Amino acid sequence: MDLTLSDIEAAKRRIDPFINETPILHSTQLNNWLGHEIFFKCENFQKIGAFKARGGLNTVAWLVEKGQKPKHIVANSSGNHAQAVAYAAKQFDIPATIFMPEYSSQVKIQATRSYGAQVVLSETRDITDELVRAAAEKEGTYWIPPFNHEQVISGQGTAAFEALQELKDIDAVFTPCGGGGLTSGTLIATKGLSPSTKVFGVEPLNANDAAESLRRGSIQRLSGIPNTLADGAMTMAVGDITFGYLKQLNGFYEVSEEQLVYWTQWLTHLLKCRLEPTCAMPMGAICEWLRTQKTKQRVLMIVSGGNVDQPTTLKIWEQDHLTHIPSIR
Amino acid sequence: MDLTLSDIEAAKRRIDPFINETPILHSTQLNNWLGHEIFFKCENFQKIGAFKARGGLNTVAWLVEKGQKPKHIVANSSGNHAQAVAYAAKQFDIPATIFMPEYSSQVKIQATRSYGAQVVLSETRDITDELVRAAAEKEGTYWIPPFNHEQVISGQGTAAFEALQELKDIDAVFTPCGGGGLTSGTLIATKGLSPSTKVFGVEPLNANDAAESLRRGSIQRLSGIPNTLADGAMTMAVGDITFGYLKQLNGFYEVSEEQLVYWTQWLTHLLKCRLEPTCAMPMGAICEWLRTQKTKQRVLMIVSGGNVDQPTTLKIWEQDHLTHIPSIR
Repeated sequence: MDLTLSDIEAAKRRIDPFINETPILHSTQLNNWLGHEIFFKCENFQKIGAFKARGGLNTVAWLVEKGQKPKHIVANSSGNHAQAVAYAAKQFDIPATIFMPEYSSQVKIQATRSYGAQVVLSETRDITDELVRAAAEKEGTYWIPPFNHEQVISGQGTAAFEALQELKDIDAVFTPCGGGGLTSGTLIATKGLSPSTKVFGVEPLNANDAAESLRRGSIQRLSGIPNTLADGAMTMAVGDITFGYLKQLNGFYEVSEEQLVYWTQWLTHLLKCRLEPTCAMPMGAICEWLRTQKTKQRVLMIVSGGNVDQPTTLKIWEQDHLTHIPSIR
Repeated sequence: MDLTLSDIEAAKRRIDPFINETPILHSTQLNNWLGHEIFFKCENFQKIGAFKARGGLNTVAWLVEKGQKPKHIVANSSGNHAQAVAYAAKQFDIPATIFMPEYSSQVKIQATRSYGAQVVLSETRDITDELVRAAAEKEGTYWIPPFNHEQVISGQGTAAFEALQELKDIDAVFTPCGGGGLTSGTLIATKGLSPSTKVFGVEPLNANDAAESLRRGSIQRLSGIPNTLADGAMTMAVGDITFGYLKQLNGFYEVSEEQLVYWTQWLTHLLKCRLEPTCAMPMGAICEWLRTQKTKQRVLMIVSGGNVDQPTTLKIWEQDHLTHIPSIR
């Protein structure tokens, strides 16, 4: 079954009591420099600091609505999905166990625990995969996957849905793409509300499995852990459900590490926000797209999250990019 | 003449068309950890990225209101005051010249120019002082000082004024103290709106001229450029007008560099905001004060600004403080 706007609307209704209606920021200075209007839907101010709260909550609320409230929820993640599931389970008083690799950032482990979830650490990602699979077999246990799930996708789509109800006449929407949950949800919400608005996905050039998959027409897997600061887009492969939606995008961009760091510094500076390199990345694509446009464009970018640890922060700020003013000329 | 609440109200009315009503953020997690409620009035989201826009605008608007619109505005500053005066002058179409030391951060020089001001760079702060004094002697020229001026103080007080109209039953307000403009304005606004609310000033221990001045009962000057990351509080001495108000504070705190960096990391992480070390600093004082309190307190902190350059960012994140959870036990 293909998801439609009504699935996004249902998700929005379900999760509304538990989430923040996040602000839409803009920078007058940036708009002057680029000669276009860019709007930032700031999911870094979402519960748990990332859009992932939406998909987690929608999945749990949907189960409860169907009368299938689980006795136990499990998930495996090294990142924001761990916190999202822990937070969602807590809102419905359901015990949760999250399997995380022990190299996950301390800040994210801490936060996941602070939402009341039991955190099980193990040496590799492969072990967490095995453990969550085994745990999910117990009766009454529900395993919430990070992206390849219709209710997760519908939840993620509510960010663009909110933004496009507030902003009119948006010409294009750009989202970062990891497993494709946010990108798919954004596509469904946007095409439902405003069919002529273009939707683009963006990946790091160094972790471009989705771009490769779209070029070859079948899902491609990264051959090893990619070397990118955009840790939210390091997913090894998209899912079969999300791939179906990614094929309907108006285009897909790959952004270099230099561009990604450049925009992390500049958006931090201009918006006064803490944001992950993953979510500054689409600005590289937006500039590339704007260079091909002859008239003034109104662009929406989903700022996906703001959970950054200290080692990543140091890498982001290693060199000074603030000396070089943004321009698309 | 002593300033009163009506001066703050007049300032608020004057500057309202030109400023942002900045958001008040809080962190549920932080409040749980500390067992108290802390509210952050986020002036990092103010025009020019700092509260200084308020004082600059109020001074220019007050001159215009009196029928004394200057032909030319001048100021000397290495920091946010430069941008504030440039921004304020631009709103009233008045040409501005800002004298800045050439070691000022590129980002701040750039921003000051982007508001249309002429920027004159010179080798030392002393030379900028001489140049601004000479420039101010020309007929029709008005020199806006950074803090020791009643209209600047009244403007800065509007941040606390806004916050205390939105929040009720605040027990204490904490502000960073450089030259004392923000602290004085906050004191006047707070005592006017809510006489029983306590007001505290906070300084870096490494630049504690105001604390020393209060201890000795007369204005003390720092003997050399202080070694602190809180560059917004590096002022060499407070002014005679601001000192009169600082003496009326309920207390004054001095915060170590370690505490100041610790809280810059944690507030960045919890609030997902870009903020200057100067404005994270009061959290060190708030924790010290909360340790002496027996009942649950509601505290307002003014987050003064978010303009941080790349070298300072690297210094802030040199070590990882996010592994050590905030606690007042």
